[in-house]
Amino acid sequence: MEEVKLHGTSYNLFTYRVIWALKLKGIPFEYLEEEHSNKGSLIMKYNPAFKRFPILFHGEKVISESMVIIEYIEDTWPQNPLLPIDPLDRSIARFWVKFAGDKVYACIGTMYYTSGEKQEKAIKETIEMLKIIEEQVFIGDQENKFFGGEKIGIVDLAFGIIPHWLEIIEDIIGVKLLEPNLFPNLLNWVQNFKEEQIIKENLPNYDEMFVFLKNQRELILSSS
Amino acid sequence: MEEVKLHGTSYNLFTYRVIWALKLKGIPFEYLEEEHSNKGSLIMKYNPAFKRFPILFHGEKVISESMVIIEYIEDTWPQNPLLPIDPLDRSIARFWVKFAGDKVYACIGTMYYTSGEKQEKAIKETIEMLKIIEEQVFIGDQENKFFGGEKIGIVDLAFGIIPHWLEIIEDIIGVKLLEPNLFPNLLNWVQNFKEEQIIKENLPNYDEMFVFLKNQRELILSSS
Repeated sequence: MEEVKLHGTSYNLFTYRVIWALKLKGIPFEYLEEEHSNKGSLIMKYNPAFKRFPILFHGEKVISESMVIIEYIEDTWPQNPLLPIDPLDRSIARFWVKFAGDKVYACIGTMYYTSGEKQEKAIKETIEMLKIIEEQVFIGDQENKFFGGEKIGIVDLAFGIIPHWLEIIEDIIGVKLLEPNLFPNLLNWVQNFKEEQIIKENLPNYDEMFVFLKNQRELILSSS
Repeated sequence: MEEVKLHGTSYNLFTYRVIWALKLKGIPFEYLEEEHSNKGSLIMKYNPAFKRFPILFHGEKVISESMVIIEYIEDTWPQNPLLPIDPLDRSIARFWVKFAGDKVYACIGTMYYTSGEKQEKAIKETIEMLKIIEEQVFIGDQENKFFGGEKIGIVDLAFGIIPHWLEIIEDIIGVKLLEPNLFPNLLNWVQNFKEEQIIKENLPNYDEMFVFLKNQRELILSSS
């Protein structure tokens, strides 16, 4: 079997998504931590279009962008599938992966890296976005722990910023968005997700990440 | 065979992408034109997360978001494949589909719906984005008419806004971006794409689209 190496950065959801996918598939891999400021040769050689980690090396093959990497993992190692088999179910999963990619990070990121009026507007937009997830994605199907089943799949990985990351961000900016009375379905899923062994064992340390994200926010606010 | 119906809006690249994909696959379908201002029942029922067309009905099944629809079409009708079979080639195709989704429309849209300094900044960003396509996507491989082969595939469909749409936008805002000396590879691909029978026969009328886009731009600029 060809060697699998994942280059990523700490506290980074996009890196963790791929770690989770590889672990869920049971694929042995080496993880190599890169510096956050590293826009050096590796990035410029292998992902000059987006200039970011993670990057997966599978023997001589190189793949970047977290959800593209996850589809590659799915195409290459069919065991413990992350996508359903039925074309309609696949399209529903891909629809929510697109929603996560287009809306979730944009909303949370804007809320996190702004202040004052801009932040208030972004908080409202984030709540609207979370309501869509509450009402349309994790709709409180008692039979399913995760999106569409008993096992974590690609949609759960796509929404992986909500458990842990969003909770830390709430604590830093002092705003509680995930209220139990507003988001019972979503919070039920958050709990299921965090209780899963592979997720629990592969989450950044709360305190370290709190300090890292807080510093990053202050740096960006002071330079804007 | 279950009936296929596509609901879309005129002059809309996202609608045309799906028309092209269905025609390339040789799938008979009925096209139903929707009003641009229609945020009515169909959208709110079937795509409330994004609130936009196109929407594909395949019998009782409903799929929305153009690239999600194209992956559904590929999963459902394997003839005339739009994606390569090899996992690495698939990941490269999906990488550029993601680039098109994240960068191409954002850049061109911002350039189109702004004026003055904001527009100048957006024009520069659009040129940088087009350079990435020139140097990394359509790299002047003399053997290939399209991305990775002799036949139009998912990457060509994803970049489908560049032929026709971007050319009309250039004419409206009076800025020429696609200079032959700067973008020989990209312009070569544009020509191949527009000469393909199915594309040629399924493009919005230049003059009508010019008027439509010009009015839309003026409306947005006057209300911002």
